[in-house]
Amino acid sequence: MLEPHSFVTGKWIAPAKEAAILHSPVTGAAIARVGGAALDFQDMIDWAKSKGGPALREMTFHQRAKMLKALGAYIDSRKEELYALNPLTGATRKDGWIDIDGGIGTMFVFASKGRREMPDGHVYLDGELEQLSRNGTFLGQHIALPLHGVAVHINAFNFPVWGMLEKLAPTLLAGVPCIVKPATQTSFLTEACVRIMQDSGLLPEGAVQLIVGRTGDLLSRLGAQDVVSFTGSARTALALRSMPNIIENGTRFIAEQDSLNASILGLDAGVDTPEFDLFIREAATEMTTKAGQKCTAIRRMIVPEALVDPVVEALSARLDKVTIGDPEAEGVRMGALVSASQKVDVLEMAAQIGSEATRVYGDPDRFSVEGADAKQGFLPPMLFRCDDPDAATKVHEVEAFGPVSTILPYRDTAHAADLANRGQGSLVASVITNDAQIARDITLASSHWHGRLYFNNRTSMNEATGHGSPLPHMIHGGPGRAGGGEEMGGIRGVMHYMQRTAIQGSPDILTAIGGVWITGAEEKTGPCHPFQRTYHEIEIGETIRTDKRAVTLEDIEHFAHFTGDIFYAHMDEGAAKANPFFPGRVAHGYLLLSFAAGLFVQPDPGPVLANTGINNLTFQTPVSPDDTIYVRLTAKRKTQRTEDYGEVRWNATLFNQHDEQVAEYELLTMVAYSR
Amino acid sequence: MLEPHSFVTGKWIAPAKEAAILHSPVTGAAIARVGGAALDFQDMIDWAKSKGGPALREMTFHQRAKMLKALGAYIDSRKEELYALNPLTGATRKDGWIDIDGGIGTMFVFASKGRREMPDGHVYLDGELEQLSRNGTFLGQHIALPLHGVAVHINAFNFPVWGMLEKLAPTLLAGVPCIVKPATQTSFLTEACVRIMQDSGLLPEGAVQLIVGRTGDLLSRLGAQDVVSFTGSARTALALRSMPNIIENGTRFIAEQDSLNASILGLDAGVDTPEFDLFIREAATEMTTKAGQKCTAIRRMIVPEALVDPVVEALSARLDKVTIGDPEAEGVRMGALVSASQKVDVLEMAAQIGSEATRVYGDPDRFSVEGADAKQGFLPPMLFRCDDPDAATKVHEVEAFGPVSTILPYRDTAHAADLANRGQGSLVASVITNDAQIARDITLASSHWHGRLYFNNRTSMNEATGHGSPLPHMIHGGPGRAGGGEEMGGIRGVMHYMQRTAIQGSPDILTAIGGVWITGAEEKTGPCHPFQRTYHEIEIGETIRTDKRAVTLEDIEHFAHFTGDIFYAHMDEGAAKANPFFPGRVAHGYLLLSFAAGLFVQPDPGPVLANTGINNLTFQTPVSPDDTIYVRLTAKRKTQRTEDYGEVRWNATLFNQHDEQVAEYELLTMVAYSR
Repeated sequence: MLEPHSFVTGKWIAPAKEAAILHSPVTGAAIARVGGAALDFQDMIDWAKSKGGPALREMTFHQRAKMLKALGAYIDSRKEELYALNPLTGATRKDGWIDIDGGIGTMFVFASKGRREMPDGHVYLDGELEQLSRNGTFLGQHIALPLHGVAVHINAFNFPVWGMLEKLAPTLLAGVPCIVKPATQTSFLTEACVRIMQDSGLLPEGAVQLIVGRTGDLLSRLGAQDVVSFTGSARTALALRSMPNIIENGTRFIAEQDSLNASILGLDAGVDTPEFDLFIREAATEMTTKAGQKCTAIRRMIVPEALVDPVVEALSARLDKVTIGDPEAEGVRMGALVSASQKVDVLEMAAQIGSEATRVYGDPDRFSVEGADAKQGFLPPMLFRCDDPDAATKVHEVEAFGPVSTILPYRDTAHAADLANRGQGSLVASVITNDAQIARDITLASSHWHGRLYFNNRTSMNEATGHGSPLPHMIHGGPGRAGGGEEMGGIRGVMHYMQRTAIQGSPDILTAIGGVWITGAEEKTGPCHPFQRTYHEIEIGETIRTDKRAVTLEDIEHFAHFTGDIFYAHMDEGAAKANPFFPGRVAHGYLLLSFAAGLFVQPDPGPVLANTGINNLTFQTPVSPDDTIYVRLTAKRKTQRTEDYGEVRWNATLFNQHDEQVAEYELLTMVAYSR
Repeated sequence: MLEPHSFVTGKWIAPAKEAAILHSPVTGAAIARVGGAALDFQDMIDWAKSKGGPALREMTFHQRAKMLKALGAYIDSRKEELYALNPLTGATRKDGWIDIDGGIGTMFVFASKGRREMPDGHVYLDGELEQLSRNGTFLGQHIALPLHGVAVHINAFNFPVWGMLEKLAPTLLAGVPCIVKPATQTSFLTEACVRIMQDSGLLPEGAVQLIVGRTGDLLSRLGAQDVVSFTGSARTALALRSMPNIIENGTRFIAEQDSLNASILGLDAGVDTPEFDLFIREAATEMTTKAGQKCTAIRRMIVPEALVDPVVEALSARLDKVTIGDPEAEGVRMGALVSASQKVDVLEMAAQIGSEATRVYGDPDRFSVEGADAKQGFLPPMLFRCDDPDAATKVHEVEAFGPVSTILPYRDTAHAADLANRGQGSLVASVITNDAQIARDITLASSHWHGRLYFNNRTSMNEATGHGSPLPHMIHGGPGRAGGGEEMGGIRGVMHYMQRTAIQGSPDILTAIGGVWITGAEEKTGPCHPFQRTYHEIEIGETIRTDKRAVTLEDIEHFAHFTGDIFYAHMDEGAAKANPFFPGRVAHGYLLLSFAAGLFVQPDPGPVLANTGINNLTFQTPVSPDDTIYVRLTAKRKTQRTEDYGEVRWNATLFNQHDEQVAEYELLTMVAYSR
């Protein structure tokens, strides 16, 4: 008998004697005792805030990202322990792959994005500098820093590992400690993963706590610095977000709930097209994976009127091949629902859908089950068909959270979008089409009701990740019925756990806060040419101003003939004068860049190894023959990249003999830590 | 007697016979009859959704931005009508400038940002493309499109014009129609501005409606596509956001409410520093502008212990010079509170503060008023001093929404930040310091409690816009007590009225939706070189692949000596080989860019006028002597900029003889509409 423990203020707490008993949905046998222990929720909050929060905030974004990477690798090394428990949730190994490997992969993506898109420091810069003054002495910048509260993650039963890790990764990356509350039915699998994470020794004390069982009055203790991220039913979400302290404190509440996700088969996708086959494959997968218990599963298939019969036929043939049974048995492709009560619930909802639609595939009273008793948590895929979807209401409102889907016929693309929108808010709608115009039309008519629009066709099908797969790069959530929340989406998901603050001040102040040199801030002089300085020696603000160099007509002509760039603005005084941007013949922009490099480059070997790129180059003032240029080169931003070298970005500004700005850009270099 | 009308479904509705009477806070005279008319709120919502929404969504972001600019200019041309009503709110002309010119300026900033930062089309691209597959056939992109609902703006009494326009500008730019509900006391000024806007003929029918009086059951009719943006008391906000339909539908609710804003005088800012004088000036301004009725006004002055007495003295001296009285009278610098009841409220709150703090300046029973009766809505600036701010609670919790502020002494910078945080969430905290380290320390210790941190010192003071000035570029709002909402902040403020959707699909699908060419999407061939095509002729995806060109060792040597860039990686085989990034001597990146231009440039005059810049240049594969390069140049994105020309951005990709990518960048050009 499993006894998943809570993890509270650094201690593992066993279930109480009078704990509830969980039963296997596959065999009906008792498998676990859960919950019932009295937990001190205020202690948990205090522990998170006094231990986990400070420890995480002490780390830089990159340190937290590296911790996520190491954690993911450590879980990966022990994942078979999780796969061993997975069948007790009714899930096949392939279902478990989405949950377990999917969760680990999500941590890796956040680790990678944290390193690439967040700074090697404590202050995240959100968006560009804002020029608030004419002379540049007063500027604006948005920053984000971690909230000083605790994140409470309330997760659904269907993905006990992924459901935890997809929220944990952005939360820890933000620098916020977390209390995880998994759904009781599959809490033993979450608990096993938390134990592995604690074993890793990688998590600061107080960073992650776990509640197996009820949350009691935990939520009523939350304030303005706390975040609730909830996945589950709309009914529970409504109760929780209505709590007075949540509303009064503006406690952030992210909800991801019910959703009548749709998939649209494009009008172009006739029976002989690759898209038709693709639609059938994706539809069958979404109905049967995790026995249809996915928040993103297709509940409504929106199909051209003329294709309804072919879709029913092809999909039925495909579903015929799905073996249902003991998730550990050889050849089984669809396991059990998570529990007996979930099966009852799905049958009730299916009956409601049946009041408006005809069941055309799957009989819950007659289906074969491999290696187990059909009376346990098993159901067959059940396909309905609703021939008057405009008049129907339940098919757009009632979610049977199992292997149940309904086909709805449509007349034209606008009608298809309209039917998709009848769901009043979804996590994802997919469109299987090879017609880019149909894709655009549906986007314009429908994206306001969907958190994600997934397009697939012959071009993308070999690499597409599936209608039902939320990816850490993309937001997961949706308006209306889907809860109005947003998770993941890369750094967007991290921002949910940080406070965005507008900062205003002088260049020196903003440079000190953001760690990025801003024009107008102090220019420091180093002891030698900065290309001879190591990564750690180079100081933000370190500047050289180069010698001056004249740009002659001969230089321009020579460069033109050498490179082949004989654009008239460089070659023909009359034609150049007629161009509204030029006073006459001017130097090539690339000539200026090349001369600039000639001016600022130090030729000898040194720690600055390579120029890897340029950002935001603007040519601001034309350079005429016999003008003179010089460069101001300033170390702007530093980011450690590997064990051996880091990236230094430089502000390069070219001036002419009147000290007017000729061009400005950000120069990217790789710089060694040692000589 | 003024009779501000509501503007409902295109009709002006007069106040009812039994309407309420407003009185002048300056003279006590009756000035207006307001409200009481029965309005059909469902009609208003339907009108907005059926008329305003579709008309606004039909426009591009740039068309909406141009509409904002024209509207701002039109209001500006008739603003004296608004200034004529302004004194009836108790405000001086200077107060009115913040409200009226401030509101117009906010529209101009959003108009400008809409043109510069949003596309010349219907689909806003949020963030970068996400690479979701190895071969690039399946990609991700976030987009945003307008919600299909209505925005309800509930505004405070203090800025009847700015308060409307700062919300209206991002809402209209998003493409969402709006119902404005100003505070009744100053609704006549808002109404006058709405009349001007309607007179302009620039607003589509249904884009803006106005409710003077009560909102009845309007909010209970809102759903998932609607937005409430509320400014006012925490009590009212709590009642509104607790409404079941608001919670159940996930109706977006932006609240900007009470806030005990602080200003910290840095430890470095002794009495002889420019910062000390600056602090006194800003403090006096914040206390007296709008008679202290600003949501951003300084309620708590956090001052080094040793400087409390000098601050009291200097600030008192400055406040002595503030003439209070009839806002229209010559020399008056501070007018009346907005109403008699507001005065009563402020006195009550000041009395609560007085239970913990000593009043050191300003006696509400004895002060002189110029040209009016002190018994009307007038109050003097009242400065308190609380010597034990750690033990005190009311000074951190009670907001007297008038010319009232309390001085709190602090020991060290950490203590100052701690006291600022005791406000439990503010719109803005300012720090007057010339020490960048103090600025950074306070940011790290405090930004999680503040929507904005304003730093000012001798460098920025001539251009700084003031502690209490929210700017359209920067977010306005804050956590906790401040409501947890965010307004403005440039395009961030527009996003509140749009749905963000994750889009996944093939390059052709994403190109069609976003209007931006993506690598892997169709490459079109034009009838001639694209530089000979006008802006409107150039098609997204139009591509040329150039001839090939060898890069010889002679080219590299020649370029090195011509430009002066004799970096060892180009000149010394042995040293280059020792560099981890290079296989041996390699071509200069700038040589490659220059040769690339020579390959793709068409030399004759044509519609492509100038190369204005480069974005996101990355050097991907080194080019060795005798390698060959060629360029693929593809029209990527088009944006109309002026009456005569637009910007075309090109994807430029350099390949070598093995078709490996050598470099990739975005090339910016200005292209004429005609030849």
